[in-house]
Amino acid sequence: MSHSVGLIVEYNPFHNGHALHLQTSKQLSNANMVVAVMSGFFLQRGEPALLPKWERARMALMAGADLVIELPYYYSVQKAELFAEGAIKVLSELGVHSVSFGSENGDIQDFKELISFIQQHQSEWDELVRMEMKSGKSYPKATSNAFEAINSNQKPSLSLSQPNNILGYHYLRAIEKFAPTMEAYTLKRTSAQYHDEQIPIESIASATSIRKALFEEKNLHLIKHVVPTSTWDILSQYEQAFNSFQQWESYFPYLQYQLITSTHEQLREIYECEEGLEFRLKEAIKQSTSFSDFMNKIKTKRYTWNRLQRLLTHILTQTTKKEIDQLLALETLPYLRLLGMSSRGREHLRKNKKEINTPIISRFANAFGPLKELDERVAATYATGLPNIARGNGMSSEYKQIPIQL
Amino acid sequence: MSHSVGLIVEYNPFHNGHALHLQTSKQLSNANMVVAVMSGFFLQRGEPALLPKWERARMALMAGADLVIELPYYYSVQKAELFAEGAIKVLSELGVHSVSFGSENGDIQDFKELISFIQQHQSEWDELVRMEMKSGKSYPKATSNAFEAINSNQKPSLSLSQPNNILGYHYLRAIEKFAPTMEAYTLKRTSAQYHDEQIPIESIASATSIRKALFEEKNLHLIKHVVPTSTWDILSQYEQAFNSFQQWESYFPYLQYQLITSTHEQLREIYECEEGLEFRLKEAIKQSTSFSDFMNKIKTKRYTWNRLQRLLTHILTQTTKKEIDQLLALETLPYLRLLGMSSRGREHLRKNKKEINTPIISRFANAFGPLKELDERVAATYATGLPNIARGNGMSSEYKQIPIQL
Repeated sequence: MSHSVGLIVEYNPFHNGHALHLQTSKQLSNANMVVAVMSGFFLQRGEPALLPKWERARMALMAGADLVIELPYYYSVQKAELFAEGAIKVLSELGVHSVSFGSENGDIQDFKELISFIQQHQSEWDELVRMEMKSGKSYPKATSNAFEAINSNQKPSLSLSQPNNILGYHYLRAIEKFAPTMEAYTLKRTSAQYHDEQIPIESIASATSIRKALFEEKNLHLIKHVVPTSTWDILSQYEQAFNSFQQWESYFPYLQYQLITSTHEQLREIYECEEGLEFRLKEAIKQSTSFSDFMNKIKTKRYTWNRLQRLLTHILTQTTKKEIDQLLALETLPYLRLLGMSSRGREHLRKNKKEINTPIISRFANAFGPLKELDERVAATYATGLPNIARGNGMSSEYKQIPIQL
Repeated sequence: MSHSVGLIVEYNPFHNGHALHLQTSKQLSNANMVVAVMSGFFLQRGEPALLPKWERARMALMAGADLVIELPYYYSVQKAELFAEGAIKVLSELGVHSVSFGSENGDIQDFKELISFIQQHQSEWDELVRMEMKSGKSYPKATSNAFEAINSNQKPSLSLSQPNNILGYHYLRAIEKFAPTMEAYTLKRTSAQYHDEQIPIESIASATSIRKALFEEKNLHLIKHVVPTSTWDILSQYEQAFNSFQQWESYFPYLQYQLITSTHEQLREIYECEEGLEFRLKEAIKQSTSFSDFMNKIKTKRYTWNRLQRLLTHILTQTTKKEIDQLLALETLPYLRLLGMSSRGREHLRKNKKEINTPIISRFANAFGPLKELDERVAATYATGLPNIARGNGMSSEYKQIPIQL
């Protein structure tokens, strides 16, 4: 019988650290099949993916994933809590038995202790987080401070100030809520740290340092030793075809245009546009000459960089509160978008057909409802930032593309 | 005492035909001062001007205009009737005594006869136009057919099937309504026809053929003999600085992005989006690879090319029905934007200070109200289509620019 392990990923791009995590997770969980739930065109940090979801799905399959399913936009461009809930829901719906995530901590017991600790101090915790946020702290800072402030001399050792620990904490909470029988594993992130900026000499580098090498050094060769050959080939082909990778700067003219032509009322309808941010954005955009210039003008202590980037992503894709709230309110996922599969993945879907109640969409033509509208707009918006020569093809590729099969 | 003649212009770009018209109009009307009311960044045909209003105002001043005043966007990107009303209102407000326009016909008596003829047959005329439009004809075609169909053997000789005759007809109607003491002159358009596509050997060419030389032949030298030296210098400098002139194709990515991310409901709120055009546009834009490709996909017999281009301009600038209707409903113009003046023009403004009730705005900082919002958005949208290196400057230039003074 097949036993599957789920991974929650962005693969931006897939690198040796991901490959190690994939293989180790498989061994650790005794699985013979890997299901990756992956963000699509835009990522949790509120930025466009380096290259389209199809290329990234291929990277995952070439490196051993058996199924790659898209985490829908309304869960992927989200704060950790909702991102985690969406990912766990997708894995659970696919009949995946366990999940394995990377964390700075690396000990699943620490996560479990933290969760039961917070549950024991729930009302104190809620009040502390509320107070911290009221005083202008960002959510991650507020939870971290709340944790410090709880009056107890038996505190768990897990730190909530590190990004992958925070995500892991939310995975476990989501499992508790939506998939109580799912088993969780965590692996300590090796050598490379999430925010490392330099490509190390060893073969494991952070995705951040890889992106830096691509955009600042503009040198693909710098990363050859830190990604699998298959990733390398896909990156090289993409660079040859499009002459660049996607980043916020490619979308800046459109963001600027959108902010200038939108009224304050229209901006207020956009998801995550709160507390008068529309005035701040419309004022700052006038004098901004690049995305990073703009970000530096609008950042405040109150909002994390990622929170602001997510808002800007929603403005770029014109995604409204009404639309996201409507989708989040659904009891079940409208459909799952299949990005790629191995023969083992195909077999898994065939065998579990009866248990999987959510439609699995292989062609865009079969998508439906409000999520289809959102998916279509997001794909076209992503294509908007492609070089002129590629934009037309980019727009129509979403309609034609079928799942990658190995 | 100064006697002024008004010209209604777009100068896209200013050429020898315009220079001839300017000088002849001055003589014919016995004027010692020329007031030009000029479309700003976007034109009556629903397209971006080749180069910004400031450069075009300078061309006009160098060639003998004394005052250049902007025809506000809500009158300039309009069908002939409203375009004419706006222009006559501006001239009248400035105390201009006469207006002189070019026409295919060239005899002002023919225009006056046509107007009194239509007034005599008003109800029959209205009914005929209504029927023609109901059967799917465009407005120009409908009026032309209505004219043919009127049962009379004493028809005036003016043809309403030629674009400048139609405009002239509406100038005279607007004078009757808003400036009954204003005198009207018309000059027959010489050699070059409005839609001529080739640069002729003589020194008079149509603006259409000039634009064709700039965009298709990409050769500024082809037009050197058909524009004044001052125009030539301004065009050359602009080309050197920006490496291109503005045309719809430069804005196509933004139009496409806007159409893709707007909902049908949002599009329906845009000025001139009628009769389900929003569905046609959203469907066609997906597969379009250029502006001309898109236009060819959406054109129908019912709408003229210009009518569709105007709608697309309003979509690009996100100008709503509500906004335009509100501005058109005003008793008076909110303000007049001064683009340039000669010393004689300055003197005219000084002398007529008491009679001019509308504020004359020399700096954007002094603009106000809904027209300011519209002007700001239109200027920034125009700047959006500039090459990357120039976009930032383009955005802020509207705030800094003061009237051109000679």
